[in-house]
Amino acid sequence: MEFTKEIYDYIEQLCKSVKAAESSIANSSLPQRNNVLARIAQKILDNKEAILEANAIDVANAEENGVIPTMIDRLTLNESRIKGISDALLELVGLKDVLGGGDVWTRPNGIEIKRVKVPLGVVAIIFEARPNVTVDAAALCIKTGNAVVLRGGKEAIYTNRVFVALMKEAMKEEGICPEALALVDNTSREGVSVLMGMRQYIDVLIPRGGKGLIRNVVENAAMPVIETGAGNCHLYVDSAADIDMAVKVASNAKNQRPSVCNAIETLLVHSAVAEEFLPKFAEVSKQFDLEIRGCEKTRKILEGAKEATEEDYETEYDDYIIAVKVVDGVEEAVAHINKYNTKHSEGIITNDITNAEYFKKTVDAAAVYVNASTRFTDGNEFGFGAEIGISTQKLHARGPMGLEALTTVKYLISGNGQIR
Amino acid sequence: MEFTKEIYDYIEQLCKSVKAAESSIANSSLPQRNNVLARIAQKILDNKEAILEANAIDVANAEENGVIPTMIDRLTLNESRIKGISDALLELVGLKDVLGGGDVWTRPNGIEIKRVKVPLGVVAIIFEARPNVTVDAAALCIKTGNAVVLRGGKEAIYTNRVFVALMKEAMKEEGICPEALALVDNTSREGVSVLMGMRQYIDVLIPRGGKGLIRNVVENAAMPVIETGAGNCHLYVDSAADIDMAVKVASNAKNQRPSVCNAIETLLVHSAVAEEFLPKFAEVSKQFDLEIRGCEKTRKILEGAKEATEEDYETEYDDYIIAVKVVDGVEEAVAHINKYNTKHSEGIITNDITNAEYFKKTVDAAAVYVNASTRFTDGNEFGFGAEIGISTQKLHARGPMGLEALTTVKYLISGNGQIR
Repeated sequence: MEFTKEIYDYIEQLCKSVKAAESSIANSSLPQRNNVLARIAQKILDNKEAILEANAIDVANAEENGVIPTMIDRLTLNESRIKGISDALLELVGLKDVLGGGDVWTRPNGIEIKRVKVPLGVVAIIFEARPNVTVDAAALCIKTGNAVVLRGGKEAIYTNRVFVALMKEAMKEEGICPEALALVDNTSREGVSVLMGMRQYIDVLIPRGGKGLIRNVVENAAMPVIETGAGNCHLYVDSAADIDMAVKVASNAKNQRPSVCNAIETLLVHSAVAEEFLPKFAEVSKQFDLEIRGCEKTRKILEGAKEATEEDYETEYDDYIIAVKVVDGVEEAVAHINKYNTKHSEGIITNDITNAEYFKKTVDAAAVYVNASTRFTDGNEFGFGAEIGISTQKLHARGPMGLEALTTVKYLISGNGQIR
Repeated sequence: MEFTKEIYDYIEQLCKSVKAAESSIANSSLPQRNNVLARIAQKILDNKEAILEANAIDVANAEENGVIPTMIDRLTLNESRIKGISDALLELVGLKDVLGGGDVWTRPNGIEIKRVKVPLGVVAIIFEARPNVTVDAAALCIKTGNAVVLRGGKEAIYTNRVFVALMKEAMKEEGICPEALALVDNTSREGVSVLMGMRQYIDVLIPRGGKGLIRNVVENAAMPVIETGAGNCHLYVDSAADIDMAVKVASNAKNQRPSVCNAIETLLVHSAVAEEFLPKFAEVSKQFDLEIRGCEKTRKILEGAKEATEEDYETEYDDYIIAVKVVDGVEEAVAHINKYNTKHSEGIITNDITNAEYFKKTVDAAAVYVNASTRFTDGNEFGFGAEIGISTQKLHARGPMGLEALTTVKYLISGNGQIR
């Protein structure tokens, strides 16, 4: 318990000092914030040796601790990845400012009401061991005038320390209080719990990462949360589908990068086309060694396919595995989707307008596709320029979140003594 | 515990059936929804006897249970209040639809992205014993295509049953599944706890009412919440204030209706004008029997004023009591406000542009006023036509919430086989 009090005091002090520095970044000018980003981009290039050294320690520790290869891959930096992080910062500099502006109107009593965009305040981001996220997430907050508390995965702590020190240096050089950015330099689980209780200092908490992390945050955080990323996505191949298109899109949505949230996990196939579609899909998926788990009807068509259970329909595999279910129409497909999906991205392949309209109207998801791959649910693919994450909740932001998701509004009212 | 399971099952079943009926109202047409509202307006007039009878039972029970007079006043209906409820429904019919529409753009790869406004889904509203809120809250949800779970204060249960039955009748007559609207006909505290856990059926929970209710919901609800209403508001009288305007606005902001959230609780007065302003303010406030609690400097000017403690500065009195603090400038005023306020409405009286700009920029609140009463923070006063509540959080909606706050977005993407 003594230890827990120590963690509590450390994190509370940290959050308090970020909150105290909030106005320094909130009231900074756009040129100041853009200069900070440009300076960070340059510092990252100038200090790549130090970054690579710190990262090597993280990678060695991770290997020693038996971290799985895909996670080590995400953790590892090299010259080209460092260049990529630096380039992304410069792109952000070029993006339009989202603060200020807004509508102005005058009421009959003469008061003028102006609705302006302002930063959220203090944004906390909890994420896993991906050092590029450390810089990316902080940079999006800086661009939008938000103070930020970063809590990255423990495996990346050495790398994160170097990045955060460079970012603070850049803020200081531009006259923005460096305390407006902080790294939680305690990577214990208790630390996360304490952080999730800091409602008085943190305006919004954004979890970026796997399902377990997101569920923990959504269930336990005391402050408002933007839920991101969980993607149990589906593609429905209708009786009126162009089968070649369906095969091409289904394979892309599943096999091109199965680890991401907008990849599909279950394929729903109309019974009228299942015999034509499924063997073709299985054939193109062989090169990816895709494991197919099917319902009874699927297994009659694809001999050797494993059985799909209730649990399969609930699972976001994030892997070369797919569940397949043969259905008797768009209504059954939509009912299945709305029962099992995570409200992320859902697609239909059809040439039938009625079915397409029904699908678009009744599927409950952030992004609904007709005749295109679900893999396009992404801030850059949507043309937003930057992405903080993909919201799967309905409040505040839904779908890919651009810079505007890091702002709120403020009403400024001017009068000359009006009363009610 | 048996009892608790009974409540759990009852509330889960109720939420489940509302969720199942969600698509019936979400996919209804605007004329259908407007007709429902018009029908409810008429039914309320046609059934005023039944409503008044039920309300008389509620009022008699409340009196027997020693409910305080102001609450009984809010609970009590009469012919003119019933007419008011009916009229408000007809006004809502006339308001512009906020669903559908939105931007459309085409990406270089040819996919077309359309961003449309859709209902939130199932909205639950927990409120106190004000029967007009029962109809008003349900009507706002119907207008915006949302299914709704109403949990009103136990003192109004007989009245609420009559209103909800009439509303369901109207929905049925227009071909909208009446299960899309439900009243939680269990007014126990356990019932509220169970309801707050129904994340799988309820998309958003909105508490409308006092501080205790809102805190309970914000701290314990499992689903996203829109926090409303708490208002510890301030007015700062600057050294450059027009003193007559300051007296008029301060008295209006405090005395015109102290029980509402946009009334002020603390007055901050620049030391240079305190001796002129405070006696004038105290004089006009005499007719309201206003109790003034002041800092040391205030008490030197206003002899007989009680002492203001730390607790006073934290308190939303909602009554004819005000705390007064003499400060030495706009910076000190803003620091006090940002320390104690609930991010609702804050005002400054000044003719100094620099001080006004500093105040607007640095005060953290939904609505910031220069030379006008804070009492204007209200959907109707802002010109929104309808109001669901006043959000004091920064996510989704901030300040007075119009119909749009009951919607979210959905991205509809059309292609001809695009893949990544």
